[in-house]
Amino acid sequence: MLKDIMSPNDIKSLSNSELETLAFEIRKFLIESVSRTGGHLASNLGVVELTLALHYVFDFSKDRLIWDVGHQSYVHKILTGRMDKFSELRKFGGISGFPKTSESIYDAFNTGHASTSVSAALGMARARDLSGGKFDVVSVFGDGALTGGMMFEALNDAGHSKSKVIMILNDNNMSISQNVGGLSRYLQKLRIKPEYFKSKDFIEELLSKLPLGSNRAKDTAKRAKTALKKRVIPTTLFDNLGLNYIGPVDGHDIAALKFVLERAKNSDTSSFIHIRTVKGKGYRPAETHPQQYHGISAVQSNSECYTQIFGKKLIELAKKNSRITAITAAMPINTGLSEFAKIFKNRYFDVGIAEEHAVTMAAGLAIGGFVPVVSIYSTFLQRSYDQILHDVCLQNLHIVFCIDHAGNVGEDGETHHGMHDIAFLSSMPNMTILSPSSFDELGDMMNYAINIHKGPIAIRFPKGRTQVKSPKFEFGRARIWENGGDIAIISTGRMLKTAQEVSKHFGAALIALPTITPMDSGTVVSAVKGKKLVVTVEDAAISGGIGELVSYTLSKNSVGVPVMPVAFPDAPIIHGTVSEVDKYYGMDTESIIKKIEDRLNGR
Amino acid sequence: MLKDIMSPNDIKSLSNSELETLAFEIRKFLIESVSRTGGHLASNLGVVELTLALHYVFDFSKDRLIWDVGHQSYVHKILTGRMDKFSELRKFGGISGFPKTSESIYDAFNTGHASTSVSAALGMARARDLSGGKFDVVSVFGDGALTGGMMFEALNDAGHSKSKVIMILNDNNMSISQNVGGLSRYLQKLRIKPEYFKSKDFIEELLSKLPLGSNRAKDTAKRAKTALKKRVIPTTLFDNLGLNYIGPVDGHDIAALKFVLERAKNSDTSSFIHIRTVKGKGYRPAETHPQQYHGISAVQSNSECYTQIFGKKLIELAKKNSRITAITAAMPINTGLSEFAKIFKNRYFDVGIAEEHAVTMAAGLAIGGFVPVVSIYSTFLQRSYDQILHDVCLQNLHIVFCIDHAGNVGEDGETHHGMHDIAFLSSMPNMTILSPSSFDELGDMMNYAINIHKGPIAIRFPKGRTQVKSPKFEFGRARIWENGGDIAIISTGRMLKTAQEVSKHFGAALIALPTITPMDSGTVVSAVKGKKLVVTVEDAAISGGIGELVSYTLSKNSVGVPVMPVAFPDAPIIHGTVSEVDKYYGMDTESIIKKIEDRLNGR
Repeated sequence: MLKDIMSPNDIKSLSNSELETLAFEIRKFLIESVSRTGGHLASNLGVVELTLALHYVFDFSKDRLIWDVGHQSYVHKILTGRMDKFSELRKFGGISGFPKTSESIYDAFNTGHASTSVSAALGMARARDLSGGKFDVVSVFGDGALTGGMMFEALNDAGHSKSKVIMILNDNNMSISQNVGGLSRYLQKLRIKPEYFKSKDFIEELLSKLPLGSNRAKDTAKRAKTALKKRVIPTTLFDNLGLNYIGPVDGHDIAALKFVLERAKNSDTSSFIHIRTVKGKGYRPAETHPQQYHGISAVQSNSECYTQIFGKKLIELAKKNSRITAITAAMPINTGLSEFAKIFKNRYFDVGIAEEHAVTMAAGLAIGGFVPVVSIYSTFLQRSYDQILHDVCLQNLHIVFCIDHAGNVGEDGETHHGMHDIAFLSSMPNMTILSPSSFDELGDMMNYAINIHKGPIAIRFPKGRTQVKSPKFEFGRARIWENGGDIAIISTGRMLKTAQEVSKHFGAALIALPTITPMDSGTVVSAVKGKKLVVTVEDAAISGGIGELVSYTLSKNSVGVPVMPVAFPDAPIIHGTVSEVDKYYGMDTESIIKKIEDRLNGR
Repeated sequence: MLKDIMSPNDIKSLSNSELETLAFEIRKFLIESVSRTGGHLASNLGVVELTLALHYVFDFSKDRLIWDVGHQSYVHKILTGRMDKFSELRKFGGISGFPKTSESIYDAFNTGHASTSVSAALGMARARDLSGGKFDVVSVFGDGALTGGMMFEALNDAGHSKSKVIMILNDNNMSISQNVGGLSRYLQKLRIKPEYFKSKDFIEELLSKLPLGSNRAKDTAKRAKTALKKRVIPTTLFDNLGLNYIGPVDGHDIAALKFVLERAKNSDTSSFIHIRTVKGKGYRPAETHPQQYHGISAVQSNSECYTQIFGKKLIELAKKNSRITAITAAMPINTGLSEFAKIFKNRYFDVGIAEEHAVTMAAGLAIGGFVPVVSIYSTFLQRSYDQILHDVCLQNLHIVFCIDHAGNVGEDGETHHGMHDIAFLSSMPNMTILSPSSFDELGDMMNYAINIHKGPIAIRFPKGRTQVKSPKFEFGRARIWENGGDIAIISTGRMLKTAQEVSKHFGAALIALPTITPMDSGTVVSAVKGKKLVVTVEDAAISGGIGELVSYTLSKNSVGVPVMPVAFPDAPIIHGTVSEVDKYYGMDTESIIKKIEDRLNGR
């Protein structure tokens, strides 16, 4: 059946049992296809029936559908004419693993980071009402995303807004990892109350059958309704916020899903629909180990990467220093902390998808005499900009930010590249930024940052395992690796390997910046003086990166050597493998050599 | 009595009626003192009894007390030995209007931005438990701060944590302005249930009196307790999150406050205490108009400032362009939107203290065809860093950020200066930054940004009314005001006036950058070529500001003229009047002239 689905319209004529067959075929396709290409599997297996029911009930060529986070949009992509592109999923030039308005009219809003969907949906609904439009706006978010603060801000606003939004909580009792927090416990309580949804229906059905001839009868019915509601229907947290809670609904029961979605569609007011799903549904390995099947790689590698080195080193350091605590925002496995969590149960805190709270809670720990190591991907650390600045840097607290996935992260694309951390951290008071070029250097930096440094400090390291042989780390020192020629190459982190190759080609000087800020301006100035050209090479956005920092340092010191920055543009960065993405932006050895030659030749 | 209070210990021996007398005297002192110096009045009048009760029950030389936002900490400052410093409140060299760990051992955590206190408290409590300490951690936050997302993240974490924290919701039914959202409505419902607190007490008292000889009896009592709780005590939203809700309590009844605080202190688990207070309590004008008395100025001025010009111009533009919508995060008056709110009720959205949601909701409006004008102070816009980058800039949406209070804001000090917006916005894809130097220019920029520009654009303007006569704004163009001499001064925004004076002194060239990014490198390069020195002058942090942007532009274009940046340091910036703060950091005309002379003389 699946091969005949060209657009969502093709499912509108199907019976429930046909939809179930289709669901089976979609799962089969997903498992086969994603195993080959890599991508998010478990979350997509969980939303097959929901996606079918949504496209059955609504018409998303005019209604709007927003997938929170967006990695669970594969089934939606399959149903909206993109099935034949799945062999190129997340590949260079292929379709994205996230919703993209540029890919399809059925994608209403680009997502990637968690907890944005209700805000966006409410904005669209308000725009609709202001311009007199008639369509529905639907947001689908997981129980993981629900712990993000901005979701609560949005629910608070939606709870008093007259603009109708349909909110669907896809509760699989998991974010990427096991869910945490009071809310998660509360949802679990709701999950085990299947009678809730029915009893509410029952009452309304009952009341709708009352003969309402006079106003008085209507009034009585209304009061009866209120009284009954109070007695039979417990008020949920969501009702308290002014949202009309419906649920819990079995998210794998197509008939039930169609029923509640139809009701929500026909209602004049907003609905908050709680559906229960099983992450990895229909694929035994994924059902049993949803964390392992959250995102899977096409190519498995056994060799270690920076993440694992970080995890191991932290355990080693924590054994000797009982003041070390570790904090993750819902990503213990992806940030390499799962072993730490087992060994140092009390010194490990998973706060859920809550990067803001993570950082300020760390500030509290630091004031209490501990050394918090906050492990957050570069792209997600953006969420805690204000907390890093306002709560950590202004108070000059000793917190170690271990920023994984800094720079080009490859397949996840524009919403996940960690391009901006140098730019946003370098202007913060008291902040120091380090960037290792080898596993050993990461270890040395962690030891320095945790055991010796005072004040806020960040170590940005890349996805993957690119290394060079680096000398012993010395805080605050730039390193002159090569000294000849009339060109000076300055680089740091992952790109030092590329920079080394470029330097060899030209016989150029090579300066490494393991400490990015405060910059070792003495060494940089003396190494650069008298050169014809300085080339900076970095795994970051061009604005606010080391190119700017170096030009500024030279300029302040009256060194008039021109700087040619090689970095990623200040633009949305495409997806592909890390090296494909590097090459596309001219960040590979060959392209950089050509750029320099062009510049030297005045082209 | 007040004059005899040297430390919090001095109130421990007082009777309730003596405490009430003291409360009266504190209010009198506050009203007299704050009327003279300026500062936050209404919120402090609301917490007099609470602060007395807190210091009566706890010992904050070892227990820890965190004031959310912190502008309500005056009474606390009075009781902790700082009364004699109130004539210098918020003055240059005087005490801060916010808690400062550097001022007193009784200040546990520096605050300023809303919604951070529970995160910090939970971190401190966890540190305490890890190191085996015995003290209490108390966080006091308003119902306004409760709408901020990170507060919810913290409550979610606190709700499942075993570390005991005492959370006090100071519910005055107001943030700076009227509160909004579903939560606010819910709190109002709770406020009118005085029997709640009593009934809970009653049950526990009853149960505690049961004879519990056998285990069986204990078990029965436990079950009875659960059953009774379910029947009599409605479950609040906060209980749902795993927090032990107690309230509502009259926040002006010292005996009741002492009673609940003692209970919380003696309990082994966390408490969430809901107290009801009246903002401005005891001072009729402030009770009636709490918004006007939220923050008061010592010197009232009738002349207009940038904020008011913004408000008026927006109304003028909105009359002609029905696509304009305006968004504030709980600050309609302070951002000049109160008139707009009245005239264009449907196109105005106050989302509460929720800067993250504000921005992504705006993204939804923009996708729906509207032009959202997001009006947020520079310092608070830091909260929406990720939303601006991820939801607005990556999608290149047309949203106009009107950034009030950019740069030096004077009296509010380090947590409120808007020093970082150029640094953090300039590396974002598709973002444009404008900076007016006159009221007319602000108007022209707004017209351009709203009616002509496509994509994200920010206009940063200062607190106050500093102006120069500027030529008609042309987007993307730098302006050469003066062309002589061998020095070039480059400036923008408020500092252009100072830069003009400096330029006159030296007969130097003067270049204005009304468009900061994208920088008009053609004009800048040609104006600067052949000069001996470039001096950049800006109302922002030195890192990531126009000094860096100009050096970078020159360096890329092989112009070797050294750049001397004049800007605020990357450090916590002190408080005082705007001009005192300028002067302290060498940002006044005289200091800049001296700096340049020193540089020219090689000093």
